Amino acid sequence: MPKIVNHEERRGEVVAAARRIILREGIDAATTRAIAKEAGYSNGVLTHYFADKDEILLSALEASHRRIADRLREKLSGRTGLAALRELLLDNVPLDDERAGETGLEVGFWGRSLTSPALLEVQRREAAELRYVMTSLLRSAAEAGEIRTDEDLEDVAERLLALVDGLSVHRLLYPGHVTGERLERLILGEIDRLRA
Amino acid sequence: MPKIVNHEERRGEVVAAARRIILREGIDAATTRAIAKEAGYSNGVLTHYFADKDEILLSALEASHRRIADRLREKLSGRTGLAALRELLLDNVPLDDERAGETGLEVGFWGRSLTSPALLEVQRREAAELRYVMTSLLRSAAEAGEIRTDEDLEDVAERLLALVDGLSVHRLLYPGHVTGERLERLILGEIDRLRA
Repeated sequence: MPKIVNHEERRGEVVAAARRIILREGIDAATTRAIAKEAGYSNGVLTHYFADKDEILLSALEASHRRIADRLREKLSGRTGLAALRELLLDNVPLDDERAGETGLEVGFWGRSLTSPALLEVQRREAAELRYVMTSLLRSAAEAGEIRTDEDLEDVAERLLALVDGLSVHRLLYPGHVTGERLERLILGEIDRLRA
Repeated sequence: MPKIVNHEERRGEVVAAARRIILREGIDAATTRAIAKEAGYSNGVLTHYFADKDEILLSALEASHRRIADRLREKLSGRTGLAALRELLLDNVPLDDERAGETGLEVGFWGRSLTSPALLEVQRREAAELRYVMTSLLRSAAEAGEIRTDEDLEDVAERLLALVDGLSVHRLLYPGHVTGERLERLILGEIDRLRA
């Protein structure tokens, strides 16, 4: 009888290995060879599971986004409008090690997306989803009379998402200046600013 | 008589070649070999001018920052307070090809800085300078009674710089959503928000 190998489990191990390398050494260190070594497989074995390096990197990005989405679904459960928006924003900034890892991964992918159409497409799709969730929450907060409505909600959503991304990368690069405390204060200040 | 070679000119050519590769193919494509080829030199010649690849990349980052600082000095000349702040913010977002190139370079360096102490040090030094200029302008605007002063000016500076960086990367990644018009409107909205 042939040995039964769990295909998805192997793929998961490879993706986890890629993630560890990206966080430790940067995205350009995540070569097929380095990923195989980190996962404890030969280069040859990797080709059974992934077409090329880009497919592994894409899977790592998607796995990270899936994990964020799962965590967020739990945090948003039972919350609506401004309370849900608050959770969404705070969950998207690196206030603990897990989220610092996610931000590090994301920042590495930004640079690479600018020169890789396949990665850029995934980035765009997933950014559009996050933007949709954000705009829906803003709309429900507006309908509930929680927030002022003198500004285009798409503009508000973009401002909040841009601020979250800017503060996140600054928190990683300049942690002495952008402390967790300052980061949280600035995010919560933006929520207060929206109130009716 | 030995041939006179302008050392600084050669270095400049190599740095310009590195910049072109980073913008075209991403920072991880900027290997010593690729940079030498782009500049039209042999690998061996490169070692006369730079110790290693990181020194070339650092020089490319510093050259970009120098160019931004020169342009900004000109734009700020004769302006103070809020008017100068407006120029500073608008100059730091990719509203034309030149600045889109600068943002692309910057984003590539963010990812790499997270795993390279030498690059991180340069990033931190130059971010601190920009933050200092920003805080000084806010302070002079506050002293002139142009802006409200109920908020910590360091917090305001960080919020503006984070927004500028977030909007800039979104403009490159999601140009259909973050149009130049929306980008400018959001930046000018932040200036209005500060007014006394």
